[in-house]
Amino acid sequence: MKKILFLLLFPILLFSKDFNPDDYEADVDKIIEAAMKSNIGWERLEYLCNNFANRLSGTPQLERTINWVYEEMHKDGLANVQKQPVMVPNWKRHYESVKVIFPMEYDIDMLGLGGSIATPQEGITAEVLVVRDKDELDRRKDEVKGKIVLFNAPFTTYGQTVQYRFYGAQWAAQYGAVASLIRSVSPIGFDNPHTGMMAYSDSIPKIPHAAITLEGAELLQRYQDKGQRATINLTMHAKHYPDAISHNVMGETKGSTLADEIISVGGHIDAWDAGQGAQDDGGGCMTTWEAVRLIDELGLNNKRTIRSVLWTNEENGAMGGKEYAKGFANEKHAMAFESDAGTFAPLVIRFKGSPEIMEQVKKFEPLLQKINPQITVDEGGGGVDISPLMDTGVPGMSLSPDDKGRYFWYHHSPADTFDKVDKEEFKQCVAAIAVTIYLYSILELE
Amino acid sequence: MKKILFLLLFPILLFSKDFNPDDYEADVDKIIEAAMKSNIGWERLEYLCNNFANRLSGTPQLERTINWVYEEMHKDGLANVQKQPVMVPNWKRHYESVKVIFPMEYDIDMLGLGGSIATPQEGITAEVLVVRDKDELDRRKDEVKGKIVLFNAPFTTYGQTVQYRFYGAQWAAQYGAVASLIRSVSPIGFDNPHTGMMAYSDSIPKIPHAAITLEGAELLQRYQDKGQRATINLTMHAKHYPDAISHNVMGETKGSTLADEIISVGGHIDAWDAGQGAQDDGGGCMTTWEAVRLIDELGLNNKRTIRSVLWTNEENGAMGGKEYAKGFANEKHAMAFESDAGTFAPLVIRFKGSPEIMEQVKKFEPLLQKINPQITVDEGGGGVDISPLMDTGVPGMSLSPDDKGRYFWYHHSPADTFDKVDKEEFKQCVAAIAVTIYLYSILELE
Repeated sequence: MKKILFLLLFPILLFSKDFNPDDYEADVDKIIEAAMKSNIGWERLEYLCNNFANRLSGTPQLERTINWVYEEMHKDGLANVQKQPVMVPNWKRHYESVKVIFPMEYDIDMLGLGGSIATPQEGITAEVLVVRDKDELDRRKDEVKGKIVLFNAPFTTYGQTVQYRFYGAQWAAQYGAVASLIRSVSPIGFDNPHTGMMAYSDSIPKIPHAAITLEGAELLQRYQDKGQRATINLTMHAKHYPDAISHNVMGETKGSTLADEIISVGGHIDAWDAGQGAQDDGGGCMTTWEAVRLIDELGLNNKRTIRSVLWTNEENGAMGGKEYAKGFANEKHAMAFESDAGTFAPLVIRFKGSPEIMEQVKKFEPLLQKINPQITVDEGGGGVDISPLMDTGVPGMSLSPDDKGRYFWYHHSPADTFDKVDKEEFKQCVAAIAVTIYLYSILELE
Repeated sequence: MKKILFLLLFPILLFSKDFNPDDYEADVDKIIEAAMKSNIGWERLEYLCNNFANRLSGTPQLERTINWVYEEMHKDGLANVQKQPVMVPNWKRHYESVKVIFPMEYDIDMLGLGGSIATPQEGITAEVLVVRDKDELDRRKDEVKGKIVLFNAPFTTYGQTVQYRFYGAQWAAQYGAVASLIRSVSPIGFDNPHTGMMAYSDSIPKIPHAAITLEGAELLQRYQDKGQRATINLTMHAKHYPDAISHNVMGETKGSTLADEIISVGGHIDAWDAGQGAQDDGGGCMTTWEAVRLIDELGLNNKRTIRSVLWTNEENGAMGGKEYAKGFANEKHAMAFESDAGTFAPLVIRFKGSPEIMEQVKKFEPLLQKINPQITVDEGGGGVDISPLMDTGVPGMSLSPDDKGRYFWYHHSPADTFDKVDKEEFKQCVAAIAVTIYLYSILELE
C-alpha cells in the first residue's frame, strides 16, 4: 500500500518541484544587462590591486583591505554586514636569495615557499642534486645526504605538480637533504618565480624549501646532465610570528520566503606577498561580491538569502573557511559557491550535490548561454574555502573559467597583477555568477 | 667603335662572372648535412650559457669567455687565431630598486639602464609623472619639474620604442625631471625587466634612468589615471669605472685563390648583466663560428678567407666593431656578416651592397631553401658590429630569423637563457650561414 502511494505521488511531487527557466528569463535578462553595464565591481578590483597588494595573512594591509570591504558593503546597503574574527598564521619571508657559486656566479630568481623555516643567517651552501620526479629521488636516495635537492618537475597539471611544492621538503629531508627547491609550479617561465604553501611532517626533520624560476632549474639540471657538480647558496630569513587576528567579511541580500536559508558566495581576500593577487583571488572576490550587490540593487525576488563572503587566509592555512563553517554551523546553508580559478571568460558552472538538484541546476544552462553560448553546467563544484561547509553536506558550486592555461602563468607570482584581467570577461563572470545564484535561490530543493 | 666593342664584350663578361648555383650543389649538400649532424656549435652555446653568463664589458667573466673562445679556435685548427685588444666602457649597476611609497608600499622589478648615473645613496624619492609618449611629455612639460618621469610607451617596433630607453633621460631632464623610467622595451611581460644602453647629452643635466616591468608601469599609469599622485623611491648605486681592456677574438679558414680577400662573420661575445645572453648574442656567436669551423673541417674550396669574429662590447659602446674596422683597415674586406637578431629558424638572408652582387647573392636562394623552403634572400643587411666596416664600402649581410616576435620577449632580460634556443633551429642557422658565406667566397665580384 505504501509503495503504491509513493508511485502515485512521485510524479506529482516532481512536477510541483520542477523548475521552468522560462519563468525567470526576464529577471535573467535584467541581471545580464546590469552586469555588463556596471563598472562598480571592475573598479573595485582595480582599487584593490592599486591599494592593497601583498595581502598575506598577518599583514596590516590585509586588515586594511577587509575594513575597506566592510565599509563598502555598508555603502552598498547590504544587510547583516559583519566581520568574523579568525586567527591566522603569520609567516613572513624577509630577505632571501639563491646564488649559484660554482661553476659560475649567477643569481637565480626565487621565492621561498609559505611556511618554510629559515636558513642560518649566512645561508646554506651545498651541492645540488637535481631530480625530475619523486621516483628519481627514491632511486638516488643514497646521493641525497648533505645536498640541496631540486625537484625540476615540468608542469603537467596543477594537482600533480603542486605535490612537489607541498611535500618536497619532507621527501628530500627523509633522505638527509639540507634544503630543497622546486621548479616553480607554472607551465611557462619568463624568469618569474611562483610561491605557495608547503608542509612539514613532525616525524621528518624540517629543511628550508623554496621555488626557483624555470630558467634557474634548467640551468642546474644542465650542470648535472653535464656531470658538473653545482654548488649554490640558499639564504632565507623567513620567520614564523605568533598567530594574528584576521577576519572573514560578509554582507547579504535577504531572501523573501526562505530568508533563513543561506547561499554563501565568494572568494578569498588574502593573497600571496608577490604581485597584486588580481587573478588569485581579487577577481573571484570582486565578481562574487558584485553579483550579490547587483541582485540586491535590482530588487529581484530571491527567495533565499544570498551572502557575499570574502574569506581570509585561504593561501596559507585556510582558517577563514574553517572558522566560517564553525561559526555559522547553526544556519541552514542551501549552497556555497566559490570562485578561485581566475577571472577569465566564464565557461563551466560546476555543481556538487544530489542528483535531484543537479537536474534542476542543469536547466540554468540555456539562460547562462545568453552571456556566452559556450557556458555549460556540469558536475564537480568545490573549493578550499567552501569545503568545510561541503563536508557537512552543503552542496557546492564553483566557476571554471576559460583561462586557456593562463591562470598558472600568473598564480602566486609577481605577475599576478590587474593588467592580467580583462574587463569584458570580468563582467561576464559577474553575470554568470549572479544568474546562477539568483536561480538557485528560487529552486525548490526539498 | 669603342661602343661596339663594349656591346660585344658585355655579354661575354657577364657570362664569365655569372654564378651558377648548380655547380655548388654537392658542396652545399655536404655543408647542410654536416651542420645538421654536428653538435659542436650547440654544445658550445650550452657551455657559454652554463659557464659565462653576465658577460658585460669590464667583467672578468667576459675576458674568461674570450680566452675560452681563443683556445677553442686553436683546437679547431683555425688559422690566424688572435685576440685584438679593445678598450671598453666599464659600468656596473650594483644595488638598485624601485619602491612605490604611496599610495601603497610595493616593490617594482627593474633594471637600471646601461651607462646611467647613480642616485644618491638613499635614492630619489619623488612624485611620478607618467606619459605614454614624447608628445604627451612635451604637452605636459610644465608638470615635469622635480618629478620622476615614466615613459609608459607600449612596444610597437624595437626601433621606435627603444628611443625612450636611449633618449628618455635627456627628454625628461630638459624639463626638470629628477629621474626617468621607461616601461621595458618588450611586447609582453611576466614581471621581467629589460635593460639596455642609454645616452646623455652634454648640454642637458644627467639624471638616473631605469627600466621597470610592464606591470609596474601599468600600476603607475593607473594611479595617474585615477588622479592619485604616486610617490616612489628610485635607488641606483651604479658606477662608471675607468675603461677596461677587452678583446675581439677571431680565427679563419684560409681562401684558396683569393686568400687576401676577407669575409668576416660573427656576433658579439659580450652580453648584458642579466640572464645568460643566449639569444643576444650567444647564439649569433656560436652559429657563425660553427659555420666557419664546418667549412674549414669539410675542406671545401672557399676562394676567399672566411674569418669567424666574435666582437666585444656591442651592448654598451660598440667599441669592438669600431676597433676591428680600424685595426684591419689595411685588409680587403669582401663582405661582413653579422648575426644578432636571435637564433630562431633562419628566414631571410639580407644583403646590402651593389645591385650586381645582389643579383648573384639572390641566386643562393634555391640552395638555401634546401634547409628550409621558406628561406629567402633579400635586401637590407647590417648590424652594429659590421656597420663601421660597411661605412667604408664593404658589403654587409645579416640573418633575420623567424622569431615570431619572441626575440624581444627575452632580449636584455634575465629570461634570455639557453632554454630559449631550439637545437634544430640553431643547426638550421649554422647551415644557412655556412652556405651563404661559402657561396659568397667563390663569387666573382669584380
